[in-house]
Amino acid sequence: MGRKPELQSIFSPALFHLYEEGLTEKIVVVIDILRATTTMVLAFENGAIEIVPVGIPEEALYYKDKDFLVAAERGGETVEGFSLGNSPQDYTKKMVKGRRIAITTTNGTNALRLAAYAKKVVVGSFLNLQAVADYLIAEKRDVLLFCAGWKDRCNLEDTVYAGALAELLQKEFTLEDDSTQMALDLWKSAKKDLKSYMAKASHSQRFKTLHIEGDLDMCLKMDTTSLVPLYEHGSITVKSAAPLS
Amino acid sequence: MGRKPELQSIFSPALFHLYEEGLTEKIVVVIDILRATTTMVLAFENGAIEIVPVGIPEEALYYKDKDFLVAAERGGETVEGFSLGNSPQDYTKKMVKGRRIAITTTNGTNALRLAAYAKKVVVGSFLNLQAVADYLIAEKRDVLLFCAGWKDRCNLEDTVYAGALAELLQKEFTLEDDSTQMALDLWKSAKKDLKSYMAKASHSQRFKTLHIEGDLDMCLKMDTTSLVPLYEHGSITVKSAAPLS
Repeated sequence: MGRKPELQSIFSPALFHLYEEGLTEKIVVVIDILRATTTMVLAFENGAIEIVPVGIPEEALYYKDKDFLVAAERGGETVEGFSLGNSPQDYTKKMVKGRRIAITTTNGTNALRLAAYAKKVVVGSFLNLQAVADYLIAEKRDVLLFCAGWKDRCNLEDTVYAGALAELLQKEFTLEDDSTQMALDLWKSAKKDLKSYMAKASHSQRFKTLHIEGDLDMCLKMDTTSLVPLYEHGSITVKSAAPLS
Repeated sequence: MGRKPELQSIFSPALFHLYEEGLTEKIVVVIDILRATTTMVLAFENGAIEIVPVGIPEEALYYKDKDFLVAAERGGETVEGFSLGNSPQDYTKKMVKGRRIAITTTNGTNALRLAAYAKKVVVGSFLNLQAVADYLIAEKRDVLLFCAGWKDRCNLEDTVYAGALAELLQKEFTLEDDSTQMALDLWKSAKKDLKSYMAKASHSQRFKTLHIEGDLDMCLKMDTTSLVPLYEHGSITVKSAAPLS
């Protein structure tokens, strides 16, 4: 029998320190639905072999000499001097197949680096929702669903995704914290018509201003891949579709 | 005409710093439903004339010599050496009528002190829900709904109350931030059966352990008073039921 592992949710990087106790034995799912973690999962789906999340654009440029694709986004836009930003529409097979990528974004890459000392760090998105859930169930460890948010503020899309995962995990995990309960209830409201629901998110509004509304559709596609990218020793790779339990 | 004032929500004191810009021109509603702000509103309803929120139990004791009632709660329990804690059941007419009270609690009093530099700081609870909404509508200023949370973590009851206020304010205010949207959607799920919903909150579980389940009923009573307590110069008083607009 034994105790069920615990599932907790963190709505902002500014709250991460409250959950660091025992971090080295836990699995963290990093969530930046619009768009960093979605774009990363899509890049692997399209054949990328490694992604290195870096802190600042200058650090990304350092990788250019090492035959990496380099990508940088700030405030929703591609940083000047970079051909790639954070838009999944740019991460086509033609662009990324067989390539290594160094990327820095406003929220997602920072969250990955904060989570680095966890037992495992998983890159979550709707594209690999079920695959991530299957992975977590097989691993049988305490899990933190870590929403990257927007400049330390809570956001709707990451929270709703945490709720979607919580729904898939609720039989196998103990859902004791209020944040996970909140995320689950929001997902239940959202899932009937996810796209309309997401239109309420402030980030969707930002997309309209930036004329990248097509990104939203790509970020809400569900279960297009069984890949579960893991962040380890400063780099994200895909080892297998799911571990044997 | 003019622009509508903005309504934003803060789910944890650890996120308060993100909203401090322009604070001196904004109204903050401090929310600690289980139980500090509910207990404070009830104390005024039962005839208390002033409440001084203090940081630590030792500071509360300093007020004992000044003929204050002194109250201290930590981790849900009354601190040793104090006859009053944070339970609304203790703040009867007999106990508090005509009295001044110095109180320190785990979350609520700290949140009040963080908000001190706002234009106005309002003490919110379900007991005075509509009265607080009427006050905010009349004041026509930007508003921050500030959830005291539990030891810097988000909690269900404060968030749901923020959503209840947001519903009453949504015509007169702009609801742009994702946190307020989340709170509003949670309130919509919760309001059909608030008590059952609140049973999911981790704090309700804590109440069971502490054998103070009666507190929950008192904290969910709706619109029992039109009093709007304001925190100013280190002390909370009630000036009037609602300002003239």
